[in-house]
Amino acid sequence: MIFSRRRTRIFLKYQLEQGHAARTNTFSPDIRDEQEKLLWADFVIFQFPLRWYSVPAILKGWFDRVFASGFVYGQGIGRYDKGGLKGRKAMVSTTTGSPREAFTPYGMDGDIHEKILYPIHHGMLYFAGFEPVEPFITWTPARDEEARIRYLDEYKKQLQNFSAIPSILYHPTSHYDEHHQLKTEYR
Amino acid sequence: MIFSRRRTRIFLKYQLEQGHAARTNTFSPDIRDEQEKLLWADFVIFQFPLRWYSVPAILKGWFDRVFASGFVYGQGIGRYDKGGLKGRKAMVSTTTGSPREAFTPYGMDGDIHEKILYPIHHGMLYFAGFEPVEPFITWTPARDEEARIRYLDEYKKQLQNFSAIPSILYHPTSHYDEHHQLKTEYR
Repeated sequence: MIFSRRRTRIFLKYQLEQGHAARTNTFSPDIRDEQEKLLWADFVIFQFPLRWYSVPAILKGWFDRVFASGFVYGQGIGRYDKGGLKGRKAMVSTTTGSPREAFTPYGMDGDIHEKILYPIHHGMLYFAGFEPVEPFITWTPARDEEARIRYLDEYKKQLQNFSAIPSILYHPTSHYDEHHQLKTEYR
Repeated sequence: MIFSRRRTRIFLKYQLEQGHAARTNTFSPDIRDEQEKLLWADFVIFQFPLRWYSVPAILKGWFDRVFASGFVYGQGIGRYDKGGLKGRKAMVSTTTGSPREAFTPYGMDGDIHEKILYPIHHGMLYFAGFEPVEPFITWTPARDEEARIRYLDEYKKQLQNFSAIPSILYHPTSHYDEHHQLKTEYR
């Protein structure tokens, strides 16, 4: 169940129903719980295995349902630096099946930052208002047990000083013109 | 249910179980059915609304489960031009919530080809062996009814001559060296 009350039963337009649920406080309890956790948090870690160069389906479903219109955007809420979760940071921590070299600009799988994680960092997290920080990437932990243990240690140290992790710098919406184009002075 | 018989019950490693299911022909019937449809097809269209700058969760789940190790890669099957579905073409047909200008190189949402669809075209379709062709993108159909009808007509014409749609040209695996780097002569 997604909504306890539908706005219209003639057709389903997901964002319309989400907006209605937000206005009438009728999100299903599991979604409301997740939204409340996000509002409470000031730093959120998304831990997942990189699967088919994106998040696993179950986490995508979490974004599709929890990042609702009327909660993180829409209904008078903005997007990106004006998104509903603004003032909070988020970090991706992911594990890969291919080695680091495959994810470089000339690597076979494509640049991890500019190509693979962009739709997650920019399209999901930043769109919703989060300030994404540099990800923690564990390369091929299933193939090297010693490296896996070193990564755990490194990750622990990283988290002990999590507020020092640099943010990924994206342009605020004010740097774009009315045609959604980055103004020339910021290029 | 994903597998009718597990290889190991001590821990779950998804690819290991997929490989086992492939070797012993024990994928669950719904997955086997989807795999057989792919082997039968020579041109596959993936029609979906762009949601959070990727495929909706239910389609991601389809990729996660159907594009199994031992079917499209692994167990002696290669990747990209040597993937299990080689010899077949695939086309993305998607609908957006933001206008075309927002998805240009200086657009607010990021370049649709280089950033947003790359993990799908290259990471999912090409990885599995498909030759992806140029996508059919319907910009903001929910906001302009006349445009929506024009798109339907344009799409119909496109499909009547689908074999003429240009492929997206990615490098074959032979263009990469042993460190997964594109060889200098192809840069």
